[in-house]
Amino acid sequence: MLIQHHSAEADTPTDVEAPAPKLPAIAATADALLDAAMLKRIQPEAFSPHALGRLEDLVLQLARVQSAGHLPLDLLVFDSPQVLVFAADHGISDEGVSAVPQQATRERVQQILQGRAPINTLAETMGFDLTVVDAGVASHVVEAGAAAPSVPLLVRKIGYGTRNMVLGPAMSLAQAISALQAGMDVVRHLPGNVLALGDVGVGNTSCAALLLSRLCGVPLADACGRDHPIPGGLDNTQLQNKLEKLSAAASRHRKAVKPLDALAALGGFEIAMMAGAMLQAASERRVVLVDGFVAGAAALVARGLCPPVADYLVFTHRTIDPGHRLMLIHLQVQPLMDMELRVGQGVGALVAWPILQTAQALLEH
Amino acid sequence: MLIQHHSAEADTPTDVEAPAPKLPAIAATADALLDAAMLKRIQPEAFSPHALGRLEDLVLQLARVQSAGHLPLDLLVFDSPQVLVFAADHGISDEGVSAVPQQATRERVQQILQGRAPINTLAETMGFDLTVVDAGVASHVVEAGAAAPSVPLLVRKIGYGTRNMVLGPAMSLAQAISALQAGMDVVRHLPGNVLALGDVGVGNTSCAALLLSRLCGVPLADACGRDHPIPGGLDNTQLQNKLEKLSAAASRHRKAVKPLDALAALGGFEIAMMAGAMLQAASERRVVLVDGFVAGAAALVARGLCPPVADYLVFTHRTIDPGHRLMLIHLQVQPLMDMELRVGQGVGALVAWPILQTAQALLEH
Repeated sequence: MLIQHHSAEADTPTDVEAPAPKLPAIAATADALLDAAMLKRIQPEAFSPHALGRLEDLVLQLARVQSAGHLPLDLLVFDSPQVLVFAADHGISDEGVSAVPQQATRERVQQILQGRAPINTLAETMGFDLTVVDAGVASHVVEAGAAAPSVPLLVRKIGYGTRNMVLGPAMSLAQAISALQAGMDVVRHLPGNVLALGDVGVGNTSCAALLLSRLCGVPLADACGRDHPIPGGLDNTQLQNKLEKLSAAASRHRKAVKPLDALAALGGFEIAMMAGAMLQAASERRVVLVDGFVAGAAALVARGLCPPVADYLVFTHRTIDPGHRLMLIHLQVQPLMDMELRVGQGVGALVAWPILQTAQALLEH
Repeated sequence: MLIQHHSAEADTPTDVEAPAPKLPAIAATADALLDAAMLKRIQPEAFSPHALGRLEDLVLQLARVQSAGHLPLDLLVFDSPQVLVFAADHGISDEGVSAVPQQATRERVQQILQGRAPINTLAETMGFDLTVVDAGVASHVVEAGAAAPSVPLLVRKIGYGTRNMVLGPAMSLAQAISALQAGMDVVRHLPGNVLALGDVGVGNTSCAALLLSRLCGVPLADACGRDHPIPGGLDNTQLQNKLEKLSAAASRHRKAVKPLDALAALGGFEIAMMAGAMLQAASERRVVLVDGFVAGAAALVARGLCPPVADYLVFTHRTIDPGHRLMLIHLQVQPLMDMELRVGQGVGALVAWPILQTAQALLEH
């Protein structure tokens, strides 16, 4: 198959004239003294080290986030946990890269707003406040004159969906920076010290695969591959088409290698906002629960912009996307769970939340 | 290395004169109509099938256990969840197959009885009643005249540790049957419809590896292997010694191929009791939470004795034992979590418990 390469230099964003985004200061959390003190408290007697496995690692990470260098840390305290669901549409949907039509984004958002989606159940069960952010859905999410939704909706539209990145950059650098700032701004106005992030957006696993490929050097065929057919998913022909379209986009924007440039060329509004939300939350020493593949792509961008953010991110769930497995390897993290969810919305983050509460309980006793 | 083979036929238990154990009747739970009804209730709109991944499988399994064929099932109900910790010692400890000395069994049991072990914290946090069963610790667990433990202890000692299975069968068939019956008996007197099973017993991963090898045909070197050195675990020489000792035991008891015979020759008192507990719990349609490698070996035995028991078992956690991964593959199950715990006690089962509560919540809404 011959892929047409248009001259792409002209419309690929680069940082030549880019205003640098204002990023908050984030402190790395490494603290060997604290680690030793915490391990001493939680390791059971009459067992060899690391008997509590990755629960120990989790306790240490959470303690580092919450200690702010003030020894001794007595207890982990989780206060007013928040879940933010960022929704947006993607121009690349025009290329037939998704198994569901673009309007499913709006339908899924409306279900959440009406309290009928899995994330509503989970937020209620786990005691999270749920907020939906319209980062750029391709239509009005709420009709004029419709009843007010039962879940708060913040309309922070950067656009009505991104542009088709096969034809040009998904967004301008200015839009990418606006989206980052909007994500920060949303978090700044939320209470609590725990933030879970989820996404809704048909086509956004294409962005995640492209960002993974670009920022980690993973071959695109692996980043958007598939281990086995998924019922209701893409068939082999459609998958081949997706790979060709993503290859065309990657080729067109081959100069967009810096995190911000890659985000603008290959990302999405919800991904940019999640990255901003992670940066802001980390700067405020909140624990950040990262859901699946798409939120993981936002984490890649955030880490590229400000590496210490990684200390604050708890990767909660591995989705069935094969690219997600590679992404987590590149991030050098193991997720807390692997339940094969592919519902987005932050559901994975909230299913895993009780594990953090267990870590908290182990430290209390 | 030359392994001496003694004539083993005389002392290997076989079923020639064995009294058959009285096993309770267990009904298989498969119910396609129920599955369809449940899926319809939990699958989110505007998503392709299986969007909730293995959470859906869990909902179906729990619904089948609780429905008893009476459609419609409205809700999952979890009533008075119990966690049973079975403790015993193993004669094969004499062969240097464990990184910790045999007396660690008693120390760990005493920690639980005094409320200082991780399982105490978890039982309290998750609302489980905790009971310890002395299935055959090699000493008195509670000194005469000592203060009453804060956690209930049932003394159902079959013996003061099993025999060294390199020299003879771990237990007689009569002992194996007594232990099975004791496990059933303990469960029969417990309330509730959820039962978590954990174990304490230095040397019991040797039994688990041997039972895995014997009942599933896994090469012993794989069943007791190691992916990477564990701090405080066996070094390479010790691991080689363990493999040689287990090979000698397997060779001596090569005729013990039926589940009950294998249990007697290669098992342990706590493993036999857990198998009995699983069978009784399944016959009463309780949900059974199976912790790590050793409880998994009990599940292998229970399934061998009565295959429908498998429908009631929820495998909660994969330990770091490489044999456990193979065991779960042979059982054709995926565990809910993989937190690298190696503390036993049922900790993995209780860490995973909130996932069942999430399944319940998804069905409620």
